[in-house]
Amino acid sequence: MADLLSDIAIQRELGTLSGWARRGSVLTKQYSFRNFVEAMAFVNQVADLAESANHHPDIDVRYSKVTLALSTHDSGGITQKDIDLARNIDAKDD
Amino acid sequence: MADLLSDIAIQRELGTLSGWARRGSVLTKQYSFRNFVEAMAFVNQVADLAESANHHPDIDVRYSKVTLALSTHDSGGITQKDIDLARNIDAKDD
Repeated sequence: MADLLSDIAIQRELGTLSGWARRGSVLTKQYSFRNFVEAMAFVNQVADLAESANHHPDIDVRYSKVTLALSTHDSGGITQKDIDLARNIDAKDD
Repeated sequence: MADLLSDIAIQRELGTLSGWARRGSVLTKQYSFRNFVEAMAFVNQVADLAESANHHPDIDVRYSKVTLALSTHDSGGITQKDIDLARNIDAKDD
């Protein structure tokens, strides 16, 4: 089981990510696209990364907006797995 | 703009659909799959139907569970467009 990150460690990691925020035991970010098709293309990139990492964010699609929420449920909060997946998702999104 | 359906019309249509429920101004259904990959395959089918109909449900993915919520926002509630898309989605899901 992955170790929970400390509050300080989470804040430090968030400082290196763009647009991600902590909400309790979850890291969340909303992405906006020009339309639904572009939003879904992003969702499929996220899905591929999630499946490769065997770590799956909650994904909410609202037409051209996508909200991701990352948490390590087995560990009960935010771990390095969440930080790593957030970073990989945003590397793809560039 | 599509006409809102009456409460009675919505109930009658729901009687011909499986697993859909009304929640206020929204029709919603949760689907369960064996895993995330199957859930995402379904989400992509839904996305294709939605784009073809130019009518887009809210889509929430929670690993192997997908929740759809249909409403005609321009009309402020449930219209025939929502019923038709629900029916088309479940025709694909058979």
